[in-house]
Amino acid sequence: MDYNKESLRLHREWGGKIETVPKMRVATRDELSVAYTPGVAAACLAISADYSESFQLTQRKNTVAVVTDGTAVLGLGDIGPEAAMPVMEGKCALFKAFGNVDAVPICLRTKDVDEIVNAVELISGSFGGINLEDIAAPRCFEIEEKLKARLDIPVFHDDQHGTAIVVLAALLNALKLTDRSPETVKVVISGAGAAGTAVAKLLRTAGVTCITMTDKNGIVHPDEIWLDGAKRELAQWTNPGRIRGKLADAVRGADVFIGVSAPNILTPEMVSSMNSRAIVFAMANPVPEIMPDLAAAAGAEIIGTGRSDFPNQINNVLAFPGVLRGVLDIRAKQITEAMKLAAARALAALAGEDKDHLLPEAFDTRLAEAVAEAVKLAV
Amino acid sequence: MDYNKESLRLHREWGGKIETVPKMRVATRDELSVAYTPGVAAACLAISADYSESFQLTQRKNTVAVVTDGTAVLGLGDIGPEAAMPVMEGKCALFKAFGNVDAVPICLRTKDVDEIVNAVELISGSFGGINLEDIAAPRCFEIEEKLKARLDIPVFHDDQHGTAIVVLAALLNALKLTDRSPETVKVVISGAGAAGTAVAKLLRTAGVTCITMTDKNGIVHPDEIWLDGAKRELAQWTNPGRIRGKLADAVRGADVFIGVSAPNILTPEMVSSMNSRAIVFAMANPVPEIMPDLAAAAGAEIIGTGRSDFPNQINNVLAFPGVLRGVLDIRAKQITEAMKLAAARALAALAGEDKDHLLPEAFDTRLAEAVAEAVKLAV
Repeated sequence: MDYNKESLRLHREWGGKIETVPKMRVATRDELSVAYTPGVAAACLAISADYSESFQLTQRKNTVAVVTDGTAVLGLGDIGPEAAMPVMEGKCALFKAFGNVDAVPICLRTKDVDEIVNAVELISGSFGGINLEDIAAPRCFEIEEKLKARLDIPVFHDDQHGTAIVVLAALLNALKLTDRSPETVKVVISGAGAAGTAVAKLLRTAGVTCITMTDKNGIVHPDEIWLDGAKRELAQWTNPGRIRGKLADAVRGADVFIGVSAPNILTPEMVSSMNSRAIVFAMANPVPEIMPDLAAAAGAEIIGTGRSDFPNQINNVLAFPGVLRGVLDIRAKQITEAMKLAAARALAALAGEDKDHLLPEAFDTRLAEAVAEAVKLAV
Repeated sequence: MDYNKESLRLHREWGGKIETVPKMRVATRDELSVAYTPGVAAACLAISADYSESFQLTQRKNTVAVVTDGTAVLGLGDIGPEAAMPVMEGKCALFKAFGNVDAVPICLRTKDVDEIVNAVELISGSFGGINLEDIAAPRCFEIEEKLKARLDIPVFHDDQHGTAIVVLAALLNALKLTDRSPETVKVVISGAGAAGTAVAKLLRTAGVTCITMTDKNGIVHPDEIWLDGAKRELAQWTNPGRIRGKLADAVRGADVFIGVSAPNILTPEMVSSMNSRAIVFAMANPVPEIMPDLAAAAGAEIIGTGRSDFPNQINNVLAFPGVLRGVLDIRAKQITEAMKLAAARALAALAGEDKDHLLPEAFDTRLAEAVAEAVKLAV
């Protein structure tokens, strides 16, 4: 199937991918009088008297806003808020289909950090959580931090934390299958943007001590002049060997390569220079950092990508519906590192039978509940 | 039924009155690949190349935001954005049930005009229209004007224009039943806030030349010192007789009383002082300006209220679903006076058989389509 052509045709037919449907009938005067005026006043007054009732009596109980500024949409880059809508609506459809979470797309017509934070804060009384999506780094870090400080509902930047959870889940199973532990492996992360940074942090939480990061300029190292603020912070606690150089220098002797960067940048020679039993997660989309067959031929033992046509698809949809389901259920105000770690472990526990099945299937109906339960217990 | 008690119980059971549901299945890899990645990129690129495609390929085609600051909610007043949510969700449910319009509640945590306007402008790329709701006057006028000037989608303040359309529809039939025309009747409007002002303007558009307005301070007259900016403007073109005084002075010799003000302020003596064949629309809720039996005993010939337990309920739900349905269908950028007039005439044409049936039933399934068709033709 030509997905692009068929998708465009269907988008025109659908005219929007989600709809807003009443949970009750309003077809008689009595029904109208309880769902709307005059009866609705009782719900308003209950919230007015006790703010926390808004999480019981309104859509805040089960609804997140999927917020973007349209600056880092798929591999398309900065295409603006309106053009980002199809992705956000798709995300909302997945939230409902996989996690029974209601989700509303909010595409903002600004790229200014404070304008974004202010707008989200102003609308936040209508929602139970905020899912940030496709906002370019390093702005996304600042937006997330400011929102976390100012809102009383959880904020989740899926490109960061969803990716990190699924990568960690796959890595835990890969390490188990090759009899290694997080504490002893050398990990290289190619890509020090939103996803790479979050992966590094969650791996650290999971006990990985040796993480070296690279971006298009080379290895992240405190003395490099090209570091921005976010990467300067990363340089403080990554790269324990204080290596300088390029990607090839980083991967030499490494156990794990995690790519959230660009097509074809990991050569077979680089893979061959890694330790034996190498693990390669090449997640650039649609063309990975190295094609799986090349990685295997160069000696990689376990291989994952972001694609559905190869084994071990590392796909955010495994995580975000369950994570938000969990925090909404317990009305958590923050999504902690402990929750993300628990989510990754729960995912890992649903798979890992062999090297081609590091992760459960996206359509595994146990998924969202398993992740949600883990998140709830991790508080 | 005790509507309040039952409503609160059901709100707790519902946990939000609307849900966001995908229009398509996403249960296989192929389905996911067209509704989401990778196929969705084609829809994004189509919009990126041609902005107007956002009104065809996304929820903008059929979705409005129901926006409030929670300052004038029902008769409850300024109860804040979270406590306003049950009303906004109810409104969204009615939009879908009566007009097949998808609607999303957005309750804003600010009362500042410019903050409200900015926030709505920032989110407007996600919606096909804006329905302002329960925002106190005179701020609502400024917000509406600024939004109309800055947005490329229609903005409708239902408390103003929805009310005005339904009042005019009822009035047209009342005048017809009593052999009078808009041009010759003397109308008094009690209440010079959002609803009263919009009613006055739409009645003027319909040909009513003699309109006198009152508020709690008395008759709106250019020399009164208590007028704010909005009322000062009203004073320029209402009250052609340049009467000064109180409500009693205004209604003496009037043909029509339209109340959007406060309980029990129209006395039987005042009704008796009106012209013969008096028309009294007493719409204060839940207690009208005068109870229908008292108005009838005092000589009123045609009586309407805002309540469902008396004849001639003047209820916004007759108008807003069809109006937004119509403007979304033709992608109108503004809702004009001509559209509102056409909507009122379409409503009037569906009823008016006798003095107790000035308006169609709210559950009349022809309603939204009839209003929408009229709006579309009125461009």
